[in-house]
Amino acid sequence: MSLPRTAEPVPSAPVDDLLPQCLQAELEDFLSAVSAGELAAELSALVLSGGKRLRPTFAWWGWRAAGGEAFGHRASTVVRALIALELLQGCALVHDDVMDRSTTRRGRPTAHRAFAARHLRNGWSGDARHYGDSAAVLVGDLALVWADDALVTAGLPAAALRRAWEPWRAMRTEMITGQHLDLLGAARRSESLEDALTVARLKTASYTVQRPLHLGAALADAPADVVAALCAYGRDVGVAYQLRDDLLGVFGDERVTGKPVGDDLREGKRTPLMVAALGLAAGQERPDAVELLRHCLDGGLVTSETVDRVRAVLRELGAVDAAEHEIATRTARGLAALAEAPLEPVARARLITLAHKATSRRR
Amino acid sequence: MSLPRTAEPVPSAPVDDLLPQCLQAELEDFLSAVSAGELAAELSALVLSGGKRLRPTFAWWGWRAAGGEAFGHRASTVVRALIALELLQGCALVHDDVMDRSTTRRGRPTAHRAFAARHLRNGWSGDARHYGDSAAVLVGDLALVWADDALVTAGLPAAALRRAWEPWRAMRTEMITGQHLDLLGAARRSESLEDALTVARLKTASYTVQRPLHLGAALADAPADVVAALCAYGRDVGVAYQLRDDLLGVFGDERVTGKPVGDDLREGKRTPLMVAALGLAAGQERPDAVELLRHCLDGGLVTSETVDRVRAVLRELGAVDAAEHEIATRTARGLAALAEAPLEPVARARLITLAHKATSRRR
Repeated sequence: MSLPRTAEPVPSAPVDDLLPQCLQAELEDFLSAVSAGELAAELSALVLSGGKRLRPTFAWWGWRAAGGEAFGHRASTVVRALIALELLQGCALVHDDVMDRSTTRRGRPTAHRAFAARHLRNGWSGDARHYGDSAAVLVGDLALVWADDALVTAGLPAAALRRAWEPWRAMRTEMITGQHLDLLGAARRSESLEDALTVARLKTASYTVQRPLHLGAALADAPADVVAALCAYGRDVGVAYQLRDDLLGVFGDERVTGKPVGDDLREGKRTPLMVAALGLAAGQERPDAVELLRHCLDGGLVTSETVDRVRAVLRELGAVDAAEHEIATRTARGLAALAEAPLEPVARARLITLAHKATSRRR
Repeated sequence: MSLPRTAEPVPSAPVDDLLPQCLQAELEDFLSAVSAGELAAELSALVLSGGKRLRPTFAWWGWRAAGGEAFGHRASTVVRALIALELLQGCALVHDDVMDRSTTRRGRPTAHRAFAARHLRNGWSGDARHYGDSAAVLVGDLALVWADDALVTAGLPAAALRRAWEPWRAMRTEMITGQHLDLLGAARRSESLEDALTVARLKTASYTVQRPLHLGAALADAPADVVAALCAYGRDVGVAYQLRDDLLGVFGDERVTGKPVGDDLREGKRTPLMVAALGLAAGQERPDAVELLRHCLDGGLVTSETVDRVRAVLRELGAVDAAEHEIATRTARGLAALAEAPLEPVARARLITLAHKATSRRR
């Protein structure tokens, strides 16, 4: 409402198959109107460099599932609103990278590393790393603020904005709470499967799948049964997606996943897979396996040999089979939830495809 | 709209003289509805422990100046919306404290110190300081998100919310940009008075005075001349307030200001006062003064003797007189802007009092 909107990227074809391009155009439009200074430049480089646009994709299909139009004015307003999800994700990535001390993101140095490097290059005063971290906190703050601005100023009808705020509110609080529980789990060396699953539920199922679907459906003023079905699908498919991600993190093909295999192990990530394996190892009286898994979870050195040993141990313990079973069960349950609800058929078909894609071995 | 609202703190007396109590009740109401977990507890403790409620106070008088009611349903909805400003300030304080490595805030350990202490006390795994910083970043994120939630869910009419978003959007971006320029100035050891004044303009004038007034006036659907007058007042009184704050930081009476005198010097804060003094010292060929001032700005050790010497030097250079002159000029100009606009008389009188209070020696 207050930001100049120059481009008008409403396609005459349905948005359904052009969503990434439409989102990119809207993000460029939004960021070119507000960008100024180094913080904004860093954020723009991150947000415009891609990613899978998973959250707005689920939100779009939530909108379509509840009967929202595939093109025209209302559709383009919804796309404009959905860039809020990518900006929110920009905050999550930049702040998480500071907390995890990650060095690269989407093929570029992470924001805090980029700012620290600038500090060093210029021979500035004070601690370069602290400057980098501080600037990255501000980049994330800007992303968080602009996410809300994007949603509020997209031009949605007042009633639609009001409806959308409930899932939006929940999603942001869950995202932050999930990240805190993740930090706490690492600090406490939690070996509780429930803790690990809670993090997966908040950080992936809720934040990545369920709430975006809920948001899209709310924009379309979906009836309660449609919202309930989409949320049930989102919870199960979302957790299954995270479990698949965890398996690929250890067993995946780097050429397919695009991220170095074993990174989760090197970071000591307490995935449900690893924590469940630890439980199995204790039950099967495998002190060697317990030691190996704890070594990884507690941040011990992980070489490619360690990765090979972890793979063998996870298979021997039955942790891989158990995870595959869990993924299959949750995916099936999520899909079953869709079956009962009165969803728009094109959207239902896409959600089925998305569930398979998100949880499949060849993702 | 989505949060349960149990209390109904609408007073039958005008809000004008009960604003702090009304804000406290609304903050308690909001936080008790959303609070859960350690992050929220930390934020609540900070936000409910007080502070001067300066931003909602200016916003309230912006609302009243533009003809907004002093009591009744609309007034209480506005108070409810204005807690957004205190939550936003919660984010600014917690994130700034991480960046400045501050140890206490409002008489309590800063958030990052509290979380680091908890980590140490529990003998948790990993680096306690990094854990504390990370948790504090999340506390600030929660505050930022809840600030927007508070504004959007206060129950404002859709048109009022839309009008308010323009100053709200500007305020948040200016707050973040101001903090970044502050960090940059320190890193670059900037000795530019313009840089120092830009930070004062963004972090204090805009964020603390001008935009809150603008927000309040926008809620009341103020005509352009009223908004312009309030913004002109806010810009000048806001900078004058910061200049007074800087003087009190060096010359103030701890028993009156409530904060240790010399803290700004110990933190190497590049205030317009110090930077202007450096310029005067160079012009007056006072290498001793240049050395002393640079020593402070570059983070050298500051004892109570150093503070005494800085005081003497600032007086000798004429920096104190110059600052007093600047404060008086800006305050007068800000008040003159009020004189020409059609403001509600009670509010005009209060804004005059607030300007004197905010910029006076005995603040």
